[in-house]
Amino acid sequence: MMTTNPSGPAGPVGVPVSVSVSVPGSASVAMGTATAGDVLAGYLHGQATDFLRSLRLHAESGADAEDASEAARLLRRSARRVAGVLQVYRPLTDTAWTDQLRTELVWLTGVLGREHAYAARLARLRGALHRLSRAEGEPEGTGSLTVGAARAGALLDRQLSLARTRSHSAALQALGSSRFHALADAVAVLASEVPLDPAARDLLAREALPCLVEQTHRRLTDAVEALPLGVAGRPYNAEALAHGLAATQAADSPPAESRQDAPWHQARRLVRLRRYAQEVLDEHEQGEAEPSLSVRLLGAGQALDRHRDAAEAAASAASAARTPRIAPATAYALGVLHADQRHEVESARYAFGRIWQRVTP
Amino acid sequence: MMTTNPSGPAGPVGVPVSVSVSVPGSASVAMGTATAGDVLAGYLHGQATDFLRSLRLHAESGADAEDASEAARLLRRSARRVAGVLQVYRPLTDTAWTDQLRTELVWLTGVLGREHAYAARLARLRGALHRLSRAEGEPEGTGSLTVGAARAGALLDRQLSLARTRSHSAALQALGSSRFHALADAVAVLASEVPLDPAARDLLAREALPCLVEQTHRRLTDAVEALPLGVAGRPYNAEALAHGLAATQAADSPPAESRQDAPWHQARRLVRLRRYAQEVLDEHEQGEAEPSLSVRLLGAGQALDRHRDAAEAAASAASAARTPRIAPATAYALGVLHADQRHEVESARYAFGRIWQRVTP
Repeated sequence: MMTTNPSGPAGPVGVPVSVSVSVPGSASVAMGTATAGDVLAGYLHGQATDFLRSLRLHAESGADAEDASEAARLLRRSARRVAGVLQVYRPLTDTAWTDQLRTELVWLTGVLGREHAYAARLARLRGALHRLSRAEGEPEGTGSLTVGAARAGALLDRQLSLARTRSHSAALQALGSSRFHALADAVAVLASEVPLDPAARDLLAREALPCLVEQTHRRLTDAVEALPLGVAGRPYNAEALAHGLAATQAADSPPAESRQDAPWHQARRLVRLRRYAQEVLDEHEQGEAEPSLSVRLLGAGQALDRHRDAAEAAASAASAARTPRIAPATAYALGVLHADQRHEVESARYAFGRIWQRVTP
Repeated sequence: MMTTNPSGPAGPVGVPVSVSVSVPGSASVAMGTATAGDVLAGYLHGQATDFLRSLRLHAESGADAEDASEAARLLRRSARRVAGVLQVYRPLTDTAWTDQLRTELVWLTGVLGREHAYAARLARLRGALHRLSRAEGEPEGTGSLTVGAARAGALLDRQLSLARTRSHSAALQALGSSRFHALADAVAVLASEVPLDPAARDLLAREALPCLVEQTHRRLTDAVEALPLGVAGRPYNAEALAHGLAATQAADSPPAESRQDAPWHQARRLVRLRRYAQEVLDEHEQGEAEPSLSVRLLGAGQALDRHRDAAEAAASAASAARTPRIAPATAYALGVLHADQRHEVESARYAFGRIWQRVTP
């Protein structure tokens, strides 16, 4: 069981600490003199409170699938932020306690996210099939499917709906487990008193926080610099589909496309981490922060989300095409769909490259 | 070919006119005072001579397929130019005679071009299959094909090689026909004395020619302005594949993609016509002409050639996928190939749009 490690605010020698964190979740911190611990605690209080509220919403949603899905989305949203912020600002926390919480939060977001991911992927592939089947002059989103497209859609529907249903059961099971209850208890602790490293109460927020954000930023820029942005910046480079028909080299190795995508997925995770890190700074600095940086990080993250979604959709189309005894027309439609989604991958890389130029001028 | 008059450019009014085209094909025209008839005749003499030389080369090539193919290419090259220039500068010619020649030249280039087109299309599709099957890290142009890609390649090979062989026979038959002999006789007339409208001998080249070129230029700009260049200018607009799986609306109407491509093909023909028109001007004006315009027209034409080639390759992949009793893996590879080539179509439109901005500043 995790325990709190409460430690009172202690200012550095000679400097009076002007802290006014009274009610958790409604921290009001004086600019410039707030401690790193106070700012971090204020942010985490807020997210932990959101987490617990979403959990209540989920419990109350009952049979309403839409409400439950929205509550799960909010739950994941807070969980991702708490885990991310605990990672960026780790040295300021009681790491023995927070490292374990972080592991559990990553587990939870993984379990809860899968159902949503399958539903979104099916929607994306259905949308693409309709777009590809659109007759000339017909408005977008309408149009009847050809036999091949309709069969491909039905096959994907069957496969992804099954995966979605399984993920739904797994999520419900997770939310009823003792593992989840322990996690919820830990988040409740966070909502009342964040276990910090004692030193965090002595460090000025404006000195300690940017330093840790900088470390995350460097990890991100290193990861992005390793990406083939030169190629991605030339439109229609045909790189994302270059391995579209390549054989898997070994049974236990991922297909070439997955290997090609992996560094982009890593950049996506680091952009997200950097965004959460910025949220803590922004709450602290309020008017000081450069709003355009947050906007650009959001844009960069969205481009990489689209990259991930398209890559996974392409993989699902390829995987469906390996179903035994499908009709050639179905396989043909799935091939077109696969290539279409890989071009979405390429398009997302191009979009990311252009946004990134403005993140690091 | 024409050479500049060593006496240099003619001066303004008052300076004696030093012009005369005496020997066909070696016209020596003074700048500024040459007649439209002389300049046009000089260009056509040159192309007609090239045509007859290529015809001799073709006859002498015997069993050497490569020589025969190169001779046929040169024959088409001259035939296209003569037909194009007779169209642009039609009012300067004896139209009763030249209209018929033009019709026959269009027939010949069509018949001779088909064999080359099928060979080029097969090479393009084979290249794409290899590119798509390339394993990660493998250099371009190498790599073994997966089962689906190999079967798709074999199917395309069978279908396009058959079409190529038929076109080859048709071309040989055409070259042996009395229709072709009549055409060759007409070109021989052109090589000795171009049938011009009597008035063409009285018009100044620098006045009459640019006026006719301008008419062609206006047809071209009208055609290009009707193209959806706004959409094409946004990379990854996914427009070229928008109808990739659309059903043909009626059995006798072309598929949606062909209808979408038609105005681009028309622009391609007009860019080519404009280029040939410019060649006549350039030979006449020599140093005066803006070399960058010719270069840009060439670039624009190449982008639209790629557009046509990719569109036809995509159609061949789609058509091959309708072969009865193919394996799903083959159909899948053909679907990927179809989408890949439609993205080449989109890429070519994007490239054309960028070049066109510099053709009409």
